[in-house]
Amino acid sequence: MATERVYNFSAGPSMLPESALRTAAEEMLNYHGSGMSVMEMSHRSGVYQGIFDSVKAKLKSVMSIPDSHEILFLQGGASLQFSMIPMNLMGEHGQADYAVTGNFADSAAKEAAKYGAVNIAASSEDKNHTYIPAQSELKLSPDAKYFYYCANNTIYGTEWGYVPEVKVPLVSDMSSNILSKPVDVSKYGIIYAGAQKNMAPAGLTVVIIDRALAGNELPITPLMMSYKRMIDKDSMYNTPPCYNIYMLGLVLDWVIEQGGLAAMQKLRDERSSMLYSFLDGSDIFRACAEPGSRSGMNVTFRAKSPELEAEFVKEATAAGFVNLKGHRSVGGMRASIYNAMPVEGVEKLVQFMKDFEVKRHA
Amino acid sequence: MATERVYNFSAGPSMLPESALRTAAEEMLNYHGSGMSVMEMSHRSGVYQGIFDSVKAKLKSVMSIPDSHEILFLQGGASLQFSMIPMNLMGEHGQADYAVTGNFADSAAKEAAKYGAVNIAASSEDKNHTYIPAQSELKLSPDAKYFYYCANNTIYGTEWGYVPEVKVPLVSDMSSNILSKPVDVSKYGIIYAGAQKNMAPAGLTVVIIDRALAGNELPITPLMMSYKRMIDKDSMYNTPPCYNIYMLGLVLDWVIEQGGLAAMQKLRDERSSMLYSFLDGSDIFRACAEPGSRSGMNVTFRAKSPELEAEFVKEATAAGFVNLKGHRSVGGMRASIYNAMPVEGVEKLVQFMKDFEVKRHA
Repeated sequence: MATERVYNFSAGPSMLPESALRTAAEEMLNYHGSGMSVMEMSHRSGVYQGIFDSVKAKLKSVMSIPDSHEILFLQGGASLQFSMIPMNLMGEHGQADYAVTGNFADSAAKEAAKYGAVNIAASSEDKNHTYIPAQSELKLSPDAKYFYYCANNTIYGTEWGYVPEVKVPLVSDMSSNILSKPVDVSKYGIIYAGAQKNMAPAGLTVVIIDRALAGNELPITPLMMSYKRMIDKDSMYNTPPCYNIYMLGLVLDWVIEQGGLAAMQKLRDERSSMLYSFLDGSDIFRACAEPGSRSGMNVTFRAKSPELEAEFVKEATAAGFVNLKGHRSVGGMRASIYNAMPVEGVEKLVQFMKDFEVKRHA
Repeated sequence: MATERVYNFSAGPSMLPESALRTAAEEMLNYHGSGMSVMEMSHRSGVYQGIFDSVKAKLKSVMSIPDSHEILFLQGGASLQFSMIPMNLMGEHGQADYAVTGNFADSAAKEAAKYGAVNIAASSEDKNHTYIPAQSELKLSPDAKYFYYCANNTIYGTEWGYVPEVKVPLVSDMSSNILSKPVDVSKYGIIYAGAQKNMAPAGLTVVIIDRALAGNELPITPLMMSYKRMIDKDSMYNTPPCYNIYMLGLVLDWVIEQGGLAAMQKLRDERSSMLYSFLDGSDIFRACAEPGSRSGMNVTFRAKSPELEAEFVKEATAAGFVNLKGHRSVGGMRASIYNAMPVEGVEKLVQFMKDFEVKRHA
């Protein structure tokens, strides 16, 4: 890692593998002898189609995506999926189950209620979203067209440790933990992710959808928001976010080099357990999420007082550990430790926190 | 221009100023000492907010956007605007006027018909979209909420040479001619553009909207498709396409250096008149669009036979003039000569065409 680069604990957009950035810089003016930047390529050209196809193939391989499922490269972030999912899956006067374990799941449920009936199958709001409800606590409705949950709650620092068992298609927002561990894609109707955490620069939304679910959109569904159309056009009904897709390919090259999703999971466990162990033994810091529900991607924590928190964030920033401030809606601190955060970044952060604690106790 | 780069006549994505690409490459790993790439920055961080604000300020200045209008940085391309416009402007059981002068205006009109009544105020379909109807030919409806037209028709190579005079808000798709000449923004309710021609890499949609038009969206409008919400959140309801916005800033730096939109217009006229003059005097090539309706951005032309066209495109490609094939729906050839196409690129193309013609007549 170039010494002048900082450790960026942002919740997203966030760190990307340095090798991906270096390749992007090198290829910026002339991609593989094409005489042009990837940014300048017609999305209908052979050279760009080659990039596009190879990124899809890499993602299919890395995530072991079965042939039943299609990969879509869309725009609008998770928030546009909040609408696209019910518009395509609910049907007229339909119903769906939503597990509300954080801010984004809550927004998704509220949005779905514009298009049909929403059953809140579970909510962790009673304890300020510090935990994930157990399978036995899910209140499933008999007429739901699908079950929706957010696999990792970026703001609250919780993560589903199990795949919900339900009889309807599972729809999961994996924006903040996709590519961090193996997932059995065949269990899902839709997995989707805003790319700006573990995949690529902001502006790309990856949707992995069981083709059997497409083709039932409501009549008022916008042209660009039909999964069926996007499947039929291989994500090129109009110009896709070409450069972001290219960047995803470079990030996937790095994931593959590291050893794929098994290696990502090992690194993820290493980073997060180091941080949680320290927090659980600290006298001035504490983790926010309950054990068993803790996120391997976003570690939320508090210090003894708001003053101490402000002091900590300030000193950490000066020391090159940036974006540790918690989300504005919950306060405190948050260390987002996505795939591209080196283990040494967490080691150094923990050392810094230890030193900070000693100084404050002196 | 680096000798190894080609002249790329793609209709979009298309050439970007080389200076913008060079700066992007240089700043890729560490933007202005921040220790991170622009791709890695939290959109809520001070450093990114600085970039965002400066790009907005540059665009406001370059286009002389009045204070009544807001600049939005959205996603989904022109095609998502086809839905967003009627959803926000038509109201319940509303009506709108559409001028159909090409493929994209046609798609926009069809999409609007999902949400209200569409009056086709003009159509150039009778002559295969080779001309722009005159003001006197516009059949305006008394109850229209807005008048919609596509200022430049990328596929057919026609461009509106006048601003329609109507009594309702003007809505214009300027995807393929924005930033190519001065525009009186105050005359418009909405100007929008997919960025991938004259502005930035694909994945950014720029919307310039009179604030008075916002706040009337239909109840079924998706969360992300309310102009009001996007204005209130300064385009950051969720993560915007951060890097594309940064690239727009670099492109605007180049536009400003060149002398702004007056200079862009001069270059545009120079490029297009050179090409049309040659075509009008050629024995084997001819321009498709009628004089008076011709686009300054996309020059569509035919050769005497499909065989000759295929031969021309093949030889041109080999000579480093790429993406000259016409849109698959119309055939023939198309030279897209956006802002970043150097005048010498067109000079050399014309010389190549002259030589090709001489060879074929020998």
